[in-house]
Formats: sequence, structure tokens, C-alpha cells
Amino acid sequence: MSGKSDNAPRQLGQQTPLPGSPAEAELDYVPNPRPGTQYLIRFAAPEFTSLCPVTSQPDFAHIVIDYVPGETIVESKSLKLFLGSFRNHNGFHEDVTVGIGQRLFTEMQPEWLRIGGYWYPRGGIPIDIFWQSAAPPEGLWLPDQGVASYRGRG
Amino acid sequence: MSGKSDNAPRQLGQQTPLPGSPAEAELDYVPNPRPGTQYLIRFAAPEFTSLCPVTSQPDFAHIVIDYVPGETIVESKSLKLFLGSFRNHNGFHEDVTVGIGQRLFTEMQPEWLRIGGYWYPRGGIPIDIFWQSAAPPEGLWLPDQGVASYRGRG
Amino acid sequence: MSGKSDNAPRQLGQQTPLPGSPAEAELDYVPNPRPGTQYLIRFAAPEFTSLCPVTSQPDFAHIVIDYVPGETIVESKSLKLFLGSFRNHNGFHEDVTVGIGQRLFTEMQPEWLRIGGYWYPRGGIPIDIFWQSAAPPEGLWLPDQGVASYRGRG
Amino acid sequence: MSGKSDNAPRQLGQQTPLPGSPAEAELDYVPNPRPGTQYLIRFAAPEFTSLCPVTSQPDFAHIVIDYVPGETIVESKSLKLFLGSFRNHNGFHEDVTVGIGQRLFTEMQPEWLRIGGYWYPRGGIPIDIFWQSAAPPEGLWLPDQGVASYRGRG
Amino acid sequence: MSGKSDNAPRQLGQQTPLPGSPAEAELDYVPNPRPGTQYLIRFAAPEFTSLCPVTSQPDFAHIVIDYVPGETIVESKSLKLFLGSFRNHNGFHEDVTVGIGQRLFTEMQPEWLRIGGYWYPRGGIPIDIFWQSAAPPEGLWLPDQGVASYRGRG
Amino acid sequence: MSGKSDNAPRQLGQQTPLPGSPAEAELDYVPNPRPGTQYLIRFAAPEFTSLCPVTSQPDFAHIVIDYVPGETIVESKSLKLFLGSFRNHNGFHEDVTVGIGQRLFTEMQPEWLRIGGYWYPRGGIPIDIFWQSAAPPEGLWLPDQGVASYRGRG
Amino acid sequence: MSGKSDNAPRQLGQQTPLPGSPAEAELDYVPNPRPGTQYLIRFAAPEFTSLCPVTSQPDFAHIVIDYVPGETIVESKSLKLFLGSFRNHNGFHEDVTVGIGQRLFTEMQPEWLRIGGYWYPRGGIPIDIFWQSAAPPEGLWLPDQGVASYRGRG
Amino acid sequence: MSGKSDNAPRQLGQQTPLPGSPAEAELDYVPNPRPGTQYLIRFAAPEFTSLCPVTSQPDFAHIVIDYVPGETIVESKSLKLFLGSFRNHNGFHEDVTVGIGQRLFTEMQPEWLRIGGYWYPRGGIPIDIFWQSAAPPEGLWLPDQGVASYRGRG
Amino acid sequence: MSGKSDNAPRQLGQQTPLPGSPAEAELDYVPNPRPGTQYLIRFAAPEFTSLCPVTSQPDFAHIVIDYVPGETIVESKSLKLFLGSFRNHNGFHEDVTVGIGQRLFTEMQPEWLRIGGYWYPRGGIPIDIFWQSAAPPEGLWLPDQGVASYRGRG
Amino acid sequence: MSGKSDNAPRQLGQQTPLPGSPAEAELDYVPNPRPGTQYLIRFAAPEFTSLCPVTSQPDFAHIVIDYVPGETIVESKSLKLFLGSFRNHNGFHEDVTVGIGQRLFTEMQPEWLRIGGYWYPRGGIPIDIFWQSAAPPEGLWLPDQGVASYRGRG
Ligand SMILES: [Ca+2]
Ligand SMILES: [Ca+2]
Ligand SMILES: [Ca+2]
Ligand SMILES: [Ca+2]
Ligand SMILES: [Ca+2]
Ligand SMILES: [Ca+2]
Ligand SMILES: [Ca+2]
Ligand SMILES: [Ca+2]
Ligand SMILES: [Ca+2]
Ligand SMILES: [Ca+2]
Ligand SMILES: [Ca+2]
Ligand SMILES: [Ca+2]
Ligand SMILES: [Ca+2]
Ligand SMILES: [Ca+2]
Ligand SMILES: [Ca+2]
Ligand SMILES: [Ca+2]
Repeated sequence: MSGKSDNAPRQLGQQTPLPGSPAEAELDYVPNPRPGTQYLIRFAAPEFTSLCPVTSQPDFAHIVIDYVPGETIVESKSLKLFLGSFRNHNGFHEDVTVGIGQRLFTEMQPEWLRIGGYWYPRGGIPIDIFWQSAAPPEGLWLPDQGVASYRGRG
Repeated sequence: MSGKSDNAPRQLGQQTPLPGSPAEAELDYVPNPRPGTQYLIRFAAPEFTSLCPVTSQPDFAHIVIDYVPGETIVESKSLKLFLGSFRNHNGFHEDVTVGIGQRLFTEMQPEWLRIGGYWYPRGGIPIDIFWQSAAPPEGLWLPDQGVASYRGRG
Repeated sequence: MSGKSDNAPRQLGQQTPLPGSPAEAELDYVPNPRPGTQYLIRFAAPEFTSLCPVTSQPDFAHIVIDYVPGETIVESKSLKLFLGSFRNHNGFHEDVTVGIGQRLFTEMQPEWLRIGGYWYPRGGIPIDIFWQSAAPPEGLWLPDQGVASYRGRG
Repeated sequence: MSGKSDNAPRQLGQQTPLPGSPAEAELDYVPNPRPGTQYLIRFAAPEFTSLCPVTSQPDFAHIVIDYVPGETIVESKSLKLFLGSFRNHNGFHEDVTVGIGQRLFTEMQPEWLRIGGYWYPRGGIPIDIFWQSAAPPEGLWLPDQGVASYRGRG
Repeated sequence: MSGKSDNAPRQLGQQTPLPGSPAEAELDYVPNPRPGTQYLIRFAAPEFTSLCPVTSQPDFAHIVIDYVPGETIVESKSLKLFLGSFRNHNGFHEDVTVGIGQRLFTEMQPEWLRIGGYWYPRGGIPIDIFWQSAAPPEGLWLPDQGVASYRGRG
Repeated sequence: MSGKSDNAPRQLGQQTPLPGSPAEAELDYVPNPRPGTQYLIRFAAPEFTSLCPVTSQPDFAHIVIDYVPGETIVESKSLKLFLGSFRNHNGFHEDVTVGIGQRLFTEMQPEWLRIGGYWYPRGGIPIDIFWQSAAPPEGLWLPDQGVASYRGRG
Repeated sequence: MSGKSDNAPRQLGQQTPLPGSPAEAELDYVPNPRPGTQYLIRFAAPEFTSLCPVTSQPDFAHIVIDYVPGETIVESKSLKLFLGSFRNHNGFHEDVTVGIGQRLFTEMQPEWLRIGGYWYPRGGIPIDIFWQSAAPPEGLWLPDQGVASYRGRG
Repeated sequence: MSGKSDNAPRQLGQQTPLPGSPAEAELDYVPNPRPGTQYLIRFAAPEFTSLCPVTSQPDFAHIVIDYVPGETIVESKSLKLFLGSFRNHNGFHEDVTVGIGQRLFTEMQPEWLRIGGYWYPRGGIPIDIFWQSAAPPEGLWLPDQGVASYRGRG
Repeated sequence: MSGKSDNAPRQLGQQTPLPGSPAEAELDYVPNPRPGTQYLIRFAAPEFTSLCPVTSQPDFAHIVIDYVPGETIVESKSLKLFLGSFRNHNGFHEDVTVGIGQRLFTEMQPEWLRIGGYWYPRGGIPIDIFWQSAAPPEGLWLPDQGVASYRGRG
Repeated sequence: MSGKSDNAPRQLGQQTPLPGSPAEAELDYVPNPRPGTQYLIRFAAPEFTSLCPVTSQPDFAHIVIDYVPGETIVESKSLKLFLGSFRNHNGFHEDVTVGIGQRLFTEMQPEWLRIGGYWYPRGGIPIDIFWQSAAPPEGLWLPDQGVASYRGRG
């Protein structure tokens, strides 16, 4: 489960099976094409799904990740496969959301990272989880993630 | 539980306790102020709540009622109390929604009536119920109820 | 309270006091600039207000009027003053809405007319009223009024 | 894989594991609480997921089902489990969407049914699939499903 | 009415009757799965209802709760039952909203908590209530709750 | 025109005529149910109307009031009647908006108060007025009022 | 002021001064690139402006034109200049809107044409004008123009 | 440039270069997985671009295609490459939009097809093009494409 | 072109011709009705138009002006006429927008002023211009202007 | 590839071919018409397209650029041609977005500049890139770019 930092993405443009679990998923890290520049990268993943550890029923979330790269950036296809590897993983909303953020932060060593997990409602009450590695760096441009509060019907 | 048709609303401008059940709720019907004219009356009730007959948990719905009055119209405060009387009533979505429409139709004897019940999701899947007493009358202007399909998060 | 049909609008570009009641309001009708052509005129009046006949509290509505002119069209400033004349008028939603439509229809003698009254909620339940003079004429282009169903909060 | 029509839902209020495949999923049908009445039931399932038969990558869809019940209605928790059973199923968008509609139609024998599958984009181009069992019955009130066309960014 | 902090949620996946009052409702607190990490948890509860202490009529609200967990987090099903226990409780908007926030704050002892109560209009004027336990902690990522101001009709 | 602070609202649940002018309107102040707690109360009044002092034509506004209560809060029905009392009052937008805010501030003596008046366009140009009694208190949670800028047609 | 039908647009890609009046504006018509095919062309012109014939103040409109071409289509730059030529033209809303539609219809001789003029409000009441040359042809696909009803503020 | 109908898509899951022109692009057609069933397939392509034949400047469009399949369906990756092949192609909006629809119709021989091309504005005036092969088949469920009319700014 | 500060607006309620140029337009300034109070006045002008100095084609903008009044406020009808006077004025977007703001600032001498000019796209790229006279005053409540970024089609 | 700063735009109002690559594109800089004034210029370019360096497939983005001019401003037609020159350029999202911002910053030498690149999704996950040359200058009015987070379907 260690991060790689070599020059070419290994999964982009290839047929790659979905990893069986987050532990099996390998994230690829490629050199930051704009090293030494403070900028923000945002991924939106509206298709996240995992399993509830109590009921084993599927859970769904819209996830948004923001980070300021250091020496490497995460290759987006490997990120997609990593997120897809939660498909048969049991985990609480809090654990899954913060865990994704912390794994990326530990492996990629960006300057800064945050993750928002906007979970679909169960029993009428949706849960949103917001974590960041630290207060945002000085001088960073950091737009709101802009995912609306859940509003039921009508 | 019979409908009344006298000249003055009895509940408008009064303090009236919430009826204990739909069966106890009395709907007031007042003379149609524009008899002989084909027009449509629409109520939106975004605050409907009843109880699930299997789990006894609260259910919530946004309800919209459209009708073409005959000799009487339903007085809106009595309608509000009637809808409020479902607060401790156990009923399936289909039964409650169609039942409200059919009670109004039977008691008020409008030219035509329809009801849409847009229920909040349970287990990720919301249910909408649509009933009308017949195909709409010829020449009626009948706008869409315009309540959006549920869309989850994101 | 009879309609006039002379060539010049009398109120446009003048300071005119608000009529004291709908009965006192005079509507001006000017020659249709495109006589013999079937077309639709739509007014939106988001600022309508009258008084509740039971409680004397103010009522508010967003009103939309559609019509196909015959020999005359209603001059818009006189229409505005007519709508403003309901400010101290007591009337039920149904009566006021349909009444405005019927007065315009009777005086102006358009080919066809409809009115939608979208009333602000009282006690949580708003009422919408829809009336038209007949089924729309063949071949008329008649867009939806597109006023959304009330949806409460959230 | 045959439909059941007994009086009580067997899965509502129970812990039930997700079926391993659509073929293993059993749908429960309960008596229509308003038999002999023409009305529409709508389910929205914004959390559908299956696998691409060519790449084995996950696919996602927002699904909306409308039907007019006959003697039975589908119990919503069993429907949810049935939809969840596609989680590890490989299928083309067209096949999965129409197939869900046709299985429900065959087992439940409603008066009429339609299904809309609004799939998330792959390669920039999303696909929507719309199927109905026949032209809608006369006199049915059938609102638009109102799921917006995909619009990319900006 | 004291909070519990043991390892397993007692109500998730069980049939649990709605508590008769807030005082009877027990909130369950389970260990924070990410202790020592500053992150935010948001609940949206679009289905809140209580009773007006003056008129006994039902009141409705959309409620959003944000908190930064300490050693425990509130189990979401017990939170749902707690919120549901206000169904037959009489209380002013201000009292109910701030009271929910303060009970959670006192029992759970989070690092920080806020609650927004967005109440449905009565008499044309809705009330929103906003309370937080203190100024937000340094370095916390705290998105706007994004519930729109009420706008009436049109 | 002095404020009252006794224990019971005098107007809630009663039939009360609309005051003839703002000077005649009495605002009721009741004890703050959560004294010593810093929280925000927001009222939205989408139905405000007064008269133009130059032309005597009706003006309309959507008004939003935010305040942090001190020892009392304003009772909402008396607030509604006070706002309704501007119905036949002549005043400039600036004067009316700031005046409402300042009267409430002076009588109620809240910790802090602000008012936004969003006026309907006249001559194509709407005016918005924003006033607050001081910079917001430290540590207050103060969401945006979120009323959109006017945008004309299309 | 006669229409031309030659093979090349004369104004596209050229600097062309704005015509001084609609009468001076020349519309260019080029051969329909898909003759014999029934299809619809829609122009949206959100920047239309003319002058009020009573007050000489500027009026503004969002205009949408739909037509089914015959042998020619109107070249879009000449259409833009024609619409721009109303900049100093005095005309009533009805006259201007229907007049634009009728001039295009007469000169271009399309199979069918309609025009919607959505005028900015004056005195609080906007006017929309809808004209079509006839009922739409059989088999034509004719989407709604989808311009929302004016809604004031809030 | 003839259509192919064999059993496997040749381009899905492969790296395929963008064809140099529409004429060079090959569309793949695969057997309809639900032959004999009347259903609708919709593609949205928000990323279409071609070149203006007069100025050689890039044009952009949001394109939506609806069709009822016959014996084959178009494979979506080959459709994407076909649409991408217009990148360096010069063509008028009308010609390009109707041409795409007609090529698909001719090669695929669906029961019915329509295409909507929603072009980005040039000179302030956007053009939309709508073509269908015939009036829609009886009994087809055909939702609106729901692409909003252009509205400029504000 | 000097500003006036006398007690009565000279243009409100009068018929006034549009000034021939910005230089000819006279702005009226009337005494601030709430002198000594820090508050914000916002105008939205969705109907602005001027001419491009290079091509002489019309340009359009949605303009929003915010200011904190000093001893005078600008009378809104004279502001409307001033903005209307740009109708035949040639100017670059940057020059026109900042110029309007600076003229108002110089003549009216408000405490603070800002102007946002949101121009309609030309060649696919709209330009927005934002200018303020200084950083906003301490303690001012200054809502976002909330005009959306341009988004093209779809 | 050096920037020019002379007095007249060379490309505005001319027919100019699209440059073959970003390196060939020349940006024109003209004198700032409001030198010495701190103001912000925003461009929105919803039509950006380049090629993926790994797959050569087209990529699309909505790009927004904000800057505070120094002695020159970029002429908008040359900016459009520069952005259009990426049509056949291969580049990663991060590289292209930050590169456009840095080239403009280097050549134009504005006081400050930022660029947001909102890329269309590939594989279900869109990427947004945000770069600014430094923390924004003191006293600058800098509205949010307001481009929504991607949300998939439903
Ligand atoms: Ca790698
Ligand atoms: Ca609702
Ligand atoms: Ca009665
Ligand atoms: Ca007259
Ligand atoms: Ca709600
Ligand atoms: Ca876009
Ligand atoms: Ca517990
Ligand atoms: Ca309104
Ligand atoms: Ca009192
Ligand atoms: Ca517009
Ligand atoms: Ca309003
Ligand atoms: Ca093939
Ligand atoms: Ca506008
Ligand atoms: Ca688009
Ligand atoms: Ca130059
Ligand atoms: Ca979704």
C-alpha cells in the first residue's frame, strides 16, 4: 500500500480491474508538472459507494477532494480505482471520509489537503463530513466546494 | 365525518385544536363564490406527516391538491386541520395519499380532483403517488404541479 | 365601471392616484395595434395585495394574466392601477382572482383570456387559482406560466 | 425468481443482506391498498450502480420508475434490495434499464409501467434510456420525470 | 437523560418506537472513529416537527447541525429518534432550536457545535434561528449551511 | 410607541386589526427564552409594502431582519402587524428600511441587529438597502441573507 | 426593404454599421443548406432594445424566434443588425414584437415562424408577447422557449 | 463511410485516435440488446466543436440526440469519435446539426431519431437547431430535452 | 456636469427625455434621509447599453452599484437617465464601468462606492469589471453582488 | 512569443486565422484605460479545448481568469485566439491551466492574476485547477468565480 512516484502514469489509457479493497488499491503519483507553484487541484467524485458496517447495505456519497501539490500529484485514473475499491468495503461515514483524506495526505505528501464527504440520506438524515490537514496555507485561493445542503422534497 | 355546506367558515380566525385522527377531523365546505365557472384551485401542503404502519416511524410528504369546484369549496383552515390530523395516523403512502383525495372528492363533490403526494425518501428511495378522479375536464387549464424528482446529493 | 376604447392611453406618462377600490378603477382600452392577428399578451404582476374578508389581514399574490386581444388591448398603466385598487379591498382568493379575469374579459372582449393567481401561504398552505374564459383557441401559442409550486423551507 | 403476492411485506423492518445478483433477488408484492383505482406510483432511485460488461468498471445511474398498479404493488424495501443486487452485475445500459422495467412488469402485472435510466457520463457522453410498457392509459395523470439533461461544467 | 458512551450503537438496525418526549429520548454516543483529528460532522434534518405552545398547532422546520467531535460522536439513529420525540412537544422556535443544540453539546461534549433551525412560515413570516457553542475553532473547515432565505411565491 | 416587555404575547392567537400607521403599531417584546446565550434570530418578510412619497404609488419589498437578542425578543405576530402598518405609509426606500431597523433596535435593545430591504424595481432599477447597528459581535454565526441580485428577464 | 436571396452572406465577417432604423435595415437570406427537410431554427436575442413611443424612454426585451425554413434562411449577422436597428425606434411592445415576426415571415417565406418577446418590467408589470404565423406544422419538433415568468425580488 | 453491424464494439476499451474528418469517422453499430421493444436512447454531448466555414473560428455546441433503435444501436465510443471528428471540419450550424442526425439515421436505420443542437452565442445571438426524422412513433415516451434558452448575463 | 444637492428630486414623476450623452446627463443628489448612519445602497441596472468604440456595435451589460452615502444620495430617476445616456456613447468596457463609478464617487462624495459591470459575451468571452473606491469601511455590511459567472449553453 | 504593448488592438474587427499552437499565438496588450486605479477584470471562457497528452482525446474546460491590470490590459480578441490555439495542443490539465495564467502574468505584468480551470469529467471524475500569482492585493474587490462543483446526474 505504499505510494509510487515515477514519471509515467501506469493506469491511464489501460484496462485495469477494480481493486478488491482499499488496501489492495495502489495509488500512482507522478511528478508535479508545476513544482514550486502554489495551486489547488480539486476532484469531484459523485459516484462513491461503500457498505454500512452494521447493516451491510450500500452507502452512497458525493466526495470532493482539494489539495495543494508538493512534489507529486495523484494520477487521476489510479484515484478513480482507489475510490472504486471501497465498493465492497464496510466502513462508517466518518471513518471512510477522513480515511481517504489521510491516506492521500500520507502517501502523496501534498502541502495541504481537505476532503468533503456528502452522504446520501438514510432514515431521512444525511451526514456530511469535512476534514482538512491543517488551516489552509497563506495566500491560497480556495473556492467553496458548493455542494448544497440536503433539502428533502418539495 | 360528513361534509357541511353552510355559509360561514367555522374555523378561520379561531383557535382550533388539532383533531385526534382523520376520522375525527371535520372538513368545512362553503359555497363556491364563482359557481358555474370552471376554474382550478390548488393547495400545496409541504408539511404533511403521518406514521409508517409497519415501523411506526414518522413519514413526511409534500402534498399538492388540485380541484375544480362544484357547488362548494373546502375551507382552507379546516383542510389544514384535516391534514394535520394524520400526525398520529398509521398508513401506507399509497393509502394515505389516495385516501385524502377520495375523501375530499366524496364529501365536496367537485367537478374533478387530483392529488400528488411527494414522500421524503426512506432507505434512499422516495415514493410519489398521483391520483385523479377522472381525466381532466375538457377546456380546463391545469398547470403541471412542478415538484421536482428527488435527486439525492451533489 | 364601463371599459373605454379610444385612441390614446390617458394614464401612461401621468401621475395618477391609486383608485380607492376596484369599482372606482377605470381600465383603459386602446386599439389593438395588430388587429386581425392571433397573438398572446402576458402580464406578470408579482406585487398584488388585497385584504382577507374574515380577518382583514393583508393577502399577497403573484398574478399572471394571458389573453388574445380582439379589437382592443388593455393599457398597462391602467391595468396596474386597477390591480393596485385591490389594496384595501376585502375578498376571498377565489373571488378576487376569477373576478379580475372576468372583469377584464367582459370589458375588453378579447378572443380569449386566462388568469393564474399564486397566493402566498397562510397557515402553511398556499392557494393557487387558475381560470380561463374557454379552452384556448385553435392554433394559439400558449406557453406555460411557469410559476413554481410552493415548497416551504430547505 | 417468481413474484410473491401475500399480505405482509417480509423485508420491511428487517435486516436483510443484499442479494448476490438480480437473479437471486426476490421482489415482494403486496395487495394494492386501493384496488380498482387508477393511480400512479413513482420511485426515484438516485443510487443505482452496476458494472460495465466490457471494462468491468462501475457504472452509475439515477433511475425513476412509474407504474399504475393492478392487484399488487411492489414492496419498496424488496425493490431497493433488487436494485442493490445489480452492484456486481455486468450489463449494458440499455439492457439493464429495460430489463428492470420488464422484470417488474412481468412479475407484478401492473396496468402500465415505465422506467427512465439517467446514466452518469463516460467519455463525456451520458446515456439516458426510456422505456414504457405501452402508451399510457387513458385518463392517467403522468407528470414528467423532470430529470435534467446532462450539462457538463460551467 | 444522561448520554451513554459505549462501543456499539443500540438502535441502528433495530425497530425502535418513537420516544414520547425529548426528556424520554436517549441519545447514544459511540467512540469517535477518528479521535484526535479535527473534523466536522453535519446532519441535515428536513423533517423536524413540534407544536406551538400558544396555539398547539404543528410547527415545521428544516434543521442543520454541525459539530467537531471530541471523544464520542452521536449515533445517527438515536439522533433521529431524539428529533422525532419533539413531535408532540410544545415549544417556541428559539427554545426548541437552541435547546437541541445545547443538549447535544452538554451530553456529547464535542469540541464545538452549532445548530441552524429554518422554520416554515406562519403568517407570512418564517423565523430562522442560529446558535453556536463558541466561535469556530482555529483551522476548522466550516462550509456555509446554504439553506436559502424564504422567498414566498413567484 | 414604547416597547413592552411582559411575559405573554398579546396578539398571537387573536384576531387583531392592522394598525393604521407605523406610529400606531405596538410591538410586543417577550422575555428571551435563552437569555445569556449568543444566538441569531432571522425574520424574512417577503410581503412588505408601503407608498412612494412622491407619486403615492405602492412600493414592494422583500425584507430580512437578523438580530442577536438581549433580554427580550420581539413577538412575531406583533412584528407582522408592525410591518403591515406601512401599507398606507409614505416613505423613501432608505428611510423606511433603516427606520424599521432602528425602531426595533431602540425599543428591543438587542445585542446587535441588521436589516436588508430588497425593493422591487421601478423604472428598471431596483434598490437594495443594508443597515446594521454595528459590526457583528465576535463569535456570532451570521449566515448570508442570500437574496439574489435582481436580474430582469431571460 | 425587400429580402435578398443570393448565395453568400454579405455581412458575416465584415464591419457593418448599425442601420439607422428598421426600415433601413436589410436582411440577408441565403439558401437553406438542408432544403426539403423539416427542421426548426431558434434564435435567442437577450439584448433587444427600442424606445417607448409615449415616453421615449428605452425599453428592453429578451426575444426568441423559432422558424421552419423554406427555401432560404436568414443570415444571422444581418438578423443581428436588423434587431439592433430598433435601438432608436419608437414602438409599443405588441407592435414591435409581432412586427419583427411578420417582417421575417413575409420576406423569408418560411414554412412557419413564431416570436416570443419577453419585455423587462416597467411599473412593476412586465409584458410578454407571443405570436406565431399559424398552428405549428404536423410532425414538427418544437421545444418550449423556456423563458421564466418574471418574479420580482426575493 | 458505411455502417457496420457486427457483434462486438471495436473501439470500446481501446486507445483510438480521433478521426481526421467526419468522412473518415466510422460509426460502429451493435445488435440492439432489446430488439422488438420500443424504447428511447438519449445521448448528451456537451462538448461538440467544429469550425465556422466563413471565418474559420471555432464554434461550440451542446448536442442531444434521441432515437428509438431498430435492429442495431450505435456504440457510444464510436459515436464520441465521430462527434470529435468535427473538430477541424468547417460547417454551418444548420448543416452540421441536421447532417449528424441524418447520417446516423441513414446508417443505423432506427425507428425514429431526432437531434437538438444548442450552439454557443456569436455576436450575442445563439442558434438552436432541432430536427427529427418524422413525427414521433405512437406510444413512445419522449421527454423534453430540457436545455434552457440562452439568457445572457445577470 | 456638476452634481446638485437640493432638497427635491427634479425628475421623479416627470417626463424627461434621455440625455444625448453622459456629459449632458445631470445627476441629482438629494439629502441623505439617514445622515450619520452607516448603511449601504445597492442599485441593479440590468439594462445598460453602450457602443463599442472599435466596431460601433452595441454592447450590453448588467451593472450593480453599491455605496455608503455621505451627505447626499443619488436620486434614482436621474441615475436611470444617466445610465441611459450611454446608449449612443462609444467606450471600452473597462473605461465605461470604472468611469461611471468614478463620476458618481466624485460628484456624490459618498463614504465608499463600488461598481460591478457584467458584460454580455462577444466572441464567446464575456468580461466583468469590478472597481471600488477603497477597501470597504470597517463595520459595513456588504453582501456579495451574486451575479453568476457566464456559462454558455447546456 | 513576446508580448506587445502598442496603442491599437490589431485583431479586433479583423478576420484572423486561429494560431496553430500556443507558441505561435501572439497576445496583444493595449494601454490600461484607467491606469493607477485598482480594479479587477474577469474573463469567462466556457469553450476551452485542448488534447490529452496520453490518449490524444479532446479535453474540455470552462476557464475563468481574473486580474488587476498594471500598465496594460490584454486585448480580448487576441486572448480568444490564444485560448483557441490550444485546440491541437497536448497538455495535462494542471500544466495547461497554470501555464495560461503564468504566460499572461509574465507578458502582461499585471498587479495580480488568478485562473480557474473547471475541466469536464473523464472517467466520472472532473478536475478543477486554481492558481493565483500571489495573495490578492489589499483592498481589492474580488468576487467568487461561482462555478459550481460538478454533480453528475439526477
Ligand atoms: Ca505512477
Ligand atoms: Ca418540503
Ligand atoms: Ca362550514
Ligand atoms: Ca383609453
Ligand atoms: Ca424542507
Ligand atoms: Ca460549459
Ligand atoms: Ca450507545
Ligand atoms: Ca413574488
Ligand atoms: Ca407583550
Ligand atoms: Ca436578459
Ligand atoms: Ca418576493
Ligand atoms: Ca461494430
Ligand atoms: Ca440580464
Ligand atoms: Ca455546455
Ligand atoms: Ca496590440
Ligand atoms: Ca446524484
